Amino acid sequence: MPESGVAPNYAELTRAYTRLYRYQHLSSIVGWDRNAMMPPAGNEARAAAEAELAALIHRTRTDPRLKPWLDAAEREALGDTARANLREIRRDWRDANALPEWLVEAKTLAGTRCEHAWRSQRQANDWKGFLGNFREVVKLSREEARLLADDSGLSKYDALMDRYEPGVRTADIDRIFGDVRAWLPELIAKAQAKQAKEKVLQPLGPFPVAAQRALNREVMTLLGFDFAAGRLDESAHPFSGGVPEDVRLTTRYSEDDFTRSLLGTIHETGHARYEQNLPRELLGQPVACARSFGIHESQSLSFEMQLARSRPFVGLLAPLLKQHFGDQPAFDADNLYRLWTRVKPGYIRVDADEVTYPAHVILRYEIERALVEGEIEPDDIPALWDEKMQSLLGLDTRGNYKDGCLQDVHWTEGAFGYFPSYTLGAMYAAQWFAAMRRCHADLDTRIAEGELTPVFSWLKERIWSQASLWTTPELVHRASGEALNPRYFRNHLESRYL
Amino acid sequence: MPESGVAPNYAELTRAYTRLYRYQHLSSIVGWDRNAMMPPAGNEARAAAEAELAALIHRTRTDPRLKPWLDAAEREALGDTARANLREIRRDWRDANALPEWLVEAKTLAGTRCEHAWRSQRQANDWKGFLGNFREVVKLSREEARLLADDSGLSKYDALMDRYEPGVRTADIDRIFGDVRAWLPELIAKAQAKQAKEKVLQPLGPFPVAAQRALNREVMTLLGFDFAAGRLDESAHPFSGGVPEDVRLTTRYSEDDFTRSLLGTIHETGHARYEQNLPRELLGQPVACARSFGIHESQSLSFEMQLARSRPFVGLLAPLLKQHFGDQPAFDADNLYRLWTRVKPGYIRVDADEVTYPAHVILRYEIERALVEGEIEPDDIPALWDEKMQSLLGLDTRGNYKDGCLQDVHWTEGAFGYFPSYTLGAMYAAQWFAAMRRCHADLDTRIAEGELTPVFSWLKERIWSQASLWTTPELVHRASGEALNPRYFRNHLESRYL
Repeated sequence: MPESGVAPNYAELTRAYTRLYRYQHLSSIVGWDRNAMMPPAGNEARAAAEAELAALIHRTRTDPRLKPWLDAAEREALGDTARANLREIRRDWRDANALPEWLVEAKTLAGTRCEHAWRSQRQANDWKGFLGNFREVVKLSREEARLLADDSGLSKYDALMDRYEPGVRTADIDRIFGDVRAWLPELIAKAQAKQAKEKVLQPLGPFPVAAQRALNREVMTLLGFDFAAGRLDESAHPFSGGVPEDVRLTTRYSEDDFTRSLLGTIHETGHARYEQNLPRELLGQPVACARSFGIHESQSLSFEMQLARSRPFVGLLAPLLKQHFGDQPAFDADNLYRLWTRVKPGYIRVDADEVTYPAHVILRYEIERALVEGEIEPDDIPALWDEKMQSLLGLDTRGNYKDGCLQDVHWTEGAFGYFPSYTLGAMYAAQWFAAMRRCHADLDTRIAEGELTPVFSWLKERIWSQASLWTTPELVHRASGEALNPRYFRNHLESRYL
Repeated sequence: MPESGVAPNYAELTRAYTRLYRYQHLSSIVGWDRNAMMPPAGNEARAAAEAELAALIHRTRTDPRLKPWLDAAEREALGDTARANLREIRRDWRDANALPEWLVEAKTLAGTRCEHAWRSQRQANDWKGFLGNFREVVKLSREEARLLADDSGLSKYDALMDRYEPGVRTADIDRIFGDVRAWLPELIAKAQAKQAKEKVLQPLGPFPVAAQRALNREVMTLLGFDFAAGRLDESAHPFSGGVPEDVRLTTRYSEDDFTRSLLGTIHETGHARYEQNLPRELLGQPVACARSFGIHESQSLSFEMQLARSRPFVGLLAPLLKQHFGDQPAFDADNLYRLWTRVKPGYIRVDADEVTYPAHVILRYEIERALVEGEIEPDDIPALWDEKMQSLLGLDTRGNYKDGCLQDVHWTEGAFGYFPSYTLGAMYAAQWFAAMRRCHADLDTRIAEGELTPVFSWLKERIWSQASLWTTPELVHRASGEALNPRYFRNHLESRYL
């Protein structure tokens, strides 16, 4: 990879990014530790140590020597992989250098303040109080978007979204979400009507934590998680952390309910397998990183939605539940399948099923795009929220900020442009499985028999091993033979729910 | 602490050392993680990340700006605490800057090679093979000692020992160990003769790991360990790691034997309480660090030997054992006390009881001092070892390198000058408890009643809170009213074992 002889500037860049990769390794591990292991009194010293490391990482990414190396490297003779790596280095460099330090600091400060106050304001349904801090976050985010737009030539919202979904534009999202908006409300209604007649048994607990832990580990193993290169632990907010060579998943157990932890762990295992199967020989360079937030989510949703909640896979899970918790009527595979595919419009995005989930995302996308572009103001949000919840999910949220526009952490920190990734992930996942079924007509039979290799091989070859060698649209096309097409997602929902 | 106004150079130094403290925090936590949490496949990436961090720490400690700041700060008007801090910064700076980089690297390389080969050579009793690598380690260690001696004006061995026991000299050790040598063999013989008549019951396992873990946690709590600022986990080689704000202890469980884990955990808890009670307002600066390896060991041995193996404390442990493992005749407190104070000369230092332990240390000290000073060569070690084991412990080690001069890791890495700290620690601990009994005539009665506050308050006030405010001899004098005096250790052994 270094190519020192013919490409000395590129070689300097790879050395700098190898150092950065190692610093980020430290950051990931101590971050995981903070969430999964650290006792409370360790917090202050840890915060200071992490801030020192963050400053070091920032200095490394804004080292003034990088720019001349980058400019010169772009004129050097490089192979395809190095060329792709250089594109990703340029992207990372631009991301780190496009904004003046005062703005980064001011936004971090405003975001931290807003997020901190929001924790209690949400409980208190205090939208007015929240607005006080939130206006500043929006103001700084708009300034950020303006500078990034000037730098890249994109629109303001596109410039923000490009951080999460490189190469995906508002025009794409408008087309895709516009399509979904047209058929989703009716699909939700039909699915609910169909399910109204179904009888579903709830599993009866308690489900001991030790048994849940053992079940989760067994399912992770079935899903190919490499425990020699990763761990499963517990934390208040489950996440997938660590580094590609050592992936750290967390979950949370409740003795009343094993489903949330089990399906959450399966979801995180999808993220984990992507990380564990990034091209090892390129690790340390930006080209070896996962492609985007949406592509990452497509892996967790491939595992959770496409695979784990499918009837063939539920047939594999049912005997494991009996083995770990003892038998009970609710563990009948058909019942579990009905249970894990219930459709019910609700207020809270993170609790939503896969059918109603896109409605939550579309609503947020429409509001945040208009907000960033300056077409609406923070004060306009509640009315828009109410109107969209009514039209998309038929729910009345008037006055209920707590379960409405105050429910997510993203906006409090000014993370505008992130929400579309969730639904893009769901759509990519459906598209992957449609492509997989074209390769393997008997895919569902094989899954039902516990033969998951076709799934993993397809994902490994087309997604995991491809890391950031291609832009997102290129990756999607190479993997599935066409651009992102929401038809597959619709087909998936219709065939599962209608 | 910064005193920026009147002492700008000193303020620069404290800022640099605060940054260093944060880097070392990261290093401690990822090091703990490597030993206690990391899955095997994570090793390569972790090693690279840790090496990058070590290089950063080295650059920070050898930053050329430090020297002029140090020189100028020594002429600035500083309070006593700042003055002590400056002394410790100077010591750390000298430690990091006294040696040329080629020597540090060559010694690390030779030590790593020797240690790695030693792992199998020890098993194979292969002294000749070991010598091949070890001669290079000795050669480089002598060069290191020569340069440190030139720099400090100390003798070669003193210059090495000063890293572990600042201010303690060969002349002190010769006097103290010479004294011990005179009475130890007879004391061992008498203790064994006395114990020959005692009947000791062995506890019968298995002792489930979960029960041992719960017992250890309860005993740690009894000993004042703050679980809000630390953890107990498991690792192959138990250690006390982490940072003062978040102390990470580890232990290892065997279901056949709970004693090793229990007493090992008590030992580590002594180290932990020292760290947890270093002066919080000074943390981040060298003056807030634990004083020395010997003083640190005096805390673990205060907890393990002075406190936990005493008859009053065993009386507190006995009911806990019954509670966690169920009752059995061996859990009678008098029997446990006999069991945990057995004296038996053996080949292996780490398995030695407190009576024979000093013999192992004296032997190593005499050999390594002569080796560093150039009075003997590596080839001479086995014969000296045999002779000293015979005279000190009456054991024949001829031809048994595995359980003789090949048993320790220290020499393989060239860590000469460390061994005395173990026995200094035992002596300091005895001296602390003698001083404590002068303050509290009823100390043993209070311990027997579970009232441990007098012990903790004494240690906190005289040792823990004093950190590195004083040199080791000053600290010892201030804490106990006199210089290190081996009489207290002898008294302790005689009163417990004769």
